Amino acid sequence: MGRRYETVSFLSDYGWADEFVGVVHSVVRCIAPHAWVLDVCHEIPPHDVRAGGLTLVRAVQYLAPGVVLAVVDPGVGTDRRAVAVEAGADGETVFVGPDNGLLAPAVAMLGGAARAVELTDEAYHLPAPGSTFAGRDVFAPVAAHLCLGVDLSDLGPPVDLLSLRPGLLPLPRQEDQTLEAEVLWIDRFGNAQLNVSPEEVEPFGDRVIVRCGAEVRTAVLANAYAEIAPAQLGLVVDSYGLMALALDRASAAEELGLRPGDGVSLRAPT
Amino acid sequence: MGRRYETVSFLSDYGWADEFVGVVHSVVRCIAPHAWVLDVCHEIPPHDVRAGGLTLVRAVQYLAPGVVLAVVDPGVGTDRRAVAVEAGADGETVFVGPDNGLLAPAVAMLGGAARAVELTDEAYHLPAPGSTFAGRDVFAPVAAHLCLGVDLSDLGPPVDLLSLRPGLLPLPRQEDQTLEAEVLWIDRFGNAQLNVSPEEVEPFGDRVIVRCGAEVRTAVLANAYAEIAPAQLGLVVDSYGLMALALDRASAAEELGLRPGDGVSLRAPT
Amino acid sequence: MGRRYETVSFLSDYGWADEFVGVVHSVVRCIAPHAWVLDVCHEIPPHDVRAGGLTLVRAVQYLAPGVVLAVVDPGVGTDRRAVAVEAGADGETVFVGPDNGLLAPAVAMLGGAARAVELTDEAYHLPAPGSTFAGRDVFAPVAAHLCLGVDLSDLGPPVDLLSLRPGLLPLPRQEDQTLEAEVLWIDRFGNAQLNVSPEEVEPFGDRVIVRCGAEVRTAVLANAYAEIAPAQLGLVVDSYGLMALALDRASAAEELGLRPGDGVSLRAPT
Repeated sequence: MGRRYETVSFLSDYGWADEFVGVVHSVVRCIAPHAWVLDVCHEIPPHDVRAGGLTLVRAVQYLAPGVVLAVVDPGVGTDRRAVAVEAGADGETVFVGPDNGLLAPAVAMLGGAARAVELTDEAYHLPAPGSTFAGRDVFAPVAAHLCLGVDLSDLGPPVDLLSLRPGLLPLPRQEDQTLEAEVLWIDRFGNAQLNVSPEEVEPFGDRVIVRCGAEVRTAVLANAYAEIAPAQLGLVVDSYGLMALALDRASAAEELGLRPGDGVSLRAPT
Repeated sequence: MGRRYETVSFLSDYGWADEFVGVVHSVVRCIAPHAWVLDVCHEIPPHDVRAGGLTLVRAVQYLAPGVVLAVVDPGVGTDRRAVAVEAGADGETVFVGPDNGLLAPAVAMLGGAARAVELTDEAYHLPAPGSTFAGRDVFAPVAAHLCLGVDLSDLGPPVDLLSLRPGLLPLPRQEDQTLEAEVLWIDRFGNAQLNVSPEEVEPFGDRVIVRCGAEVRTAVLANAYAEIAPAQLGLVVDSYGLMALALDRASAAEELGLRPGDGVSLRAPT
Repeated sequence: MGRRYETVSFLSDYGWADEFVGVVHSVVRCIAPHAWVLDVCHEIPPHDVRAGGLTLVRAVQYLAPGVVLAVVDPGVGTDRRAVAVEAGADGETVFVGPDNGLLAPAVAMLGGAARAVELTDEAYHLPAPGSTFAGRDVFAPVAAHLCLGVDLSDLGPPVDLLSLRPGLLPLPRQEDQTLEAEVLWIDRFGNAQLNVSPEEVEPFGDRVIVRCGAEVRTAVLANAYAEIAPAQLGLVVDSYGLMALALDRASAAEELGLRPGDGVSLRAPT
C-alpha cells in the first residue's frame, strides 16, 4: 500500500448548473469516506484546457497535500490517456486527470513528475453506462482509491515521463522597445492578468503605453486597485505576482475589450 | 432511536446568488455537527419540479447512504405536505422534501418507498419568522435530526404510501416507423438527453433522421463526442445510458434550438 | 491560547468563476485541517459592501459558532484596517474581514463587539506576491489560526470599539399617510425584500398601494407565494420576518423594474 491522503482538490469545467460536481463528490465519499473533497474551481469554460491549466497552476502552490483531481477533457472516450502523476516532495501530491496538457503546468510548478501511470485497471473504476463521464467513472474512483492508500503502480502500467503531454505557457517577447505580451486570465473583477513580471515592466518607469488591438492607452503603475484614479488605467502586481491591467471598481477587460489569449503590447512613453 | 446517518445530499433550486444554500448547511451543522452536507445541485431552474426530479434520479444511484434533502417547492406555505420517505435496502436512504413529485422518481429508482411520514412535529423544526423558507425551517432541521438518530416515526404521522404524489417520467412513443421522443435535459455542454435507450435506436442503424420543430437533420451514432465530425450532428450514449444529441465541442441544443420538454422525432433514413 | 473553533463561515464577492474561493478553503485546510469551511455566499456583487453586509446579517443568526470570514474589500491594499472582532455570548463568534462596514450589521445583531484587534502581526499571514488578495494572504490564515486556538490579542493591537466603521441599515420613514421604504434585497426568485416589518403595514389593511418609480400597483397581503393570484402583486412576510413584494412563480423585481436600494412608497387604499 502507498501513503493515504485526506484531501482531494477538484477542478473541472463541469459548472454548477448540473449534478456533475455533486456526483463526483458522492463517488469519492462512497469509496473513501474519510477524504475531504475541496472545490478549486468548476467554471473553467467548457473544453478550455488552456484556461484549466492556468487556473490549476495559479492554485497549486496553495493546495493541501493529497490528490489533485482535474478534469477538462474534450477528448473523453477517445484514446487520449487517463493518467495519475506523482509530484512534489516525497510524492505528496498525485494529479489525476486526462493527459492532454491540463496537468502539466501545475506538475512542473511542483518540480516535475516523479512517477506516472496510465489508468487502465478497471478494478479501480466504476462500471460506466456510457463513455462520456470519465470524471465520475474513472478519475473520481481512482482519486478515492489513492486516498485509501492504493499505490500508483496498482492503477495501471507506468508511463514514460517524457511522453506526458506538455502544457504551453506563453512567454512574452521583447521586440525593439516593445514587450509583446498576452492576456493569461480575466478574473471576476475584470482584471486582465498578463504573462509579464514586475521586473519586465520596471525599465518602462511609472507609466506604460499599452496597445491592445486598435486601442492605445497609458497605464499607471499602482500598488492597489483603490490607488488607481477614476477613468485611469492601472497596472498592478496581482495576487500571483504578475502584472494585471486594472481599473478601480470597474472591469478593465470590458473597457478594453480584452479576452484571454489576446495580445497586448507594452512600451515606455516616448 | 433509528440509525444514524453521516451524509446529507442536498439538491435545490436555491441557486448560489443568495445565502439560502449556506444557511441550510449552517442549520444542519448546528444541530448535527458530525454530518457532512454534500451539494448535489442547486441550479435547478426556479420552481421547476420536473427538472429537479430528473436531476435527482440521475444522481441518486451515486449518492452516499444517508439523508437526501431535496427542495424545489413552489407550494411552500400552502397545504402541500412536507414528508420524509424511507427507501433503499434496509432504509439506507431517507428522502426529505415536499410531497410534490420531486422525490418520486428517485424513490422509485431505489425500489420504492418503505415508510413515509408527514413532517408535522414542530419540535424538530426551527421557529420560522415567515412561512416561505421551509428548506431552512423544516427540511434542514429534520434532516439533521435524522442524522442524530431520530426515527422517522417521531417526525409526524405515517403517510399512506399510495397517496404520495407520483413523478411523471415521459416515455417515448412508437408511431409507425417513427419514435416520438422528448428532451429530458440540456447539460452545460449543450448535449440534449432524450428519453430513449440505445436499444430503441438500434433498429435505425448507424444514421438516424432527427426532426425537431421545422428542423430535420441526420445524426450519426458515435461512441464519443470527439468522434463526431465538425458540423455533424451526433447521437451518443450519454453518461446515464440514454441517447443524447451532441456536437463535438459545441452545443447541440443551441444549434437546434432545443429546450427540456421539447419533442424530437427519430426514424431510419429512407 | 484562546478557545478553538471548528467552523469557518465564509462570505465574499469572489464568485465561483475563478479559483479564489477554493484557494481560501485550501489555505485554511493547510493550517487548520480540523476546521470546516462553510460557504455562506460568494455571489455578492463585486465591491458591494452594502449587499455583503445585508447578506451577512440575514445569515448570521443561523451560523454555527466559530469564525466568520467575510471579504468584500474594494479598499484592499490601501490603509483600510483588517480586523478581527469578537461578538456573541462568551465570544463564541469571531468576525474576520476588512473594517469597512461589512461586518458591522452582523456584529450588532449578535449584541455588539466585545473585543477587536487590527491584524498587523504578519506571523499569522502568508507571504504575499502582491497586495490584492487579502482573503488568501491575511484573512484566511488568521481565521485558521483562530481555529487553532490563537487568541485575538496575539493577532495585533486592540482596536477602539467605537472606531469600528458602522454599517448603515436604512430605516423606513413615515410621511403623512405614506411609508417611504427601500428595497434591501432581490432574491433569486425575484422577491423584493423591503425594510418594513409586518407591524408597519398592518394599519394599511389587506391591500396596500405600492408606488415604485412611475408604477402604482395594489398589492394584496398573502401568507404564501402560492396564495397570490396570477397577475396579482403580493406582499408576503419573508423568511427573515420582513415584508417582500412577490408574485407567484414569477419575478416581482423584474415586473416592477426594482433593484436593491430603490425607494418604494406604501400607503392604504383611498
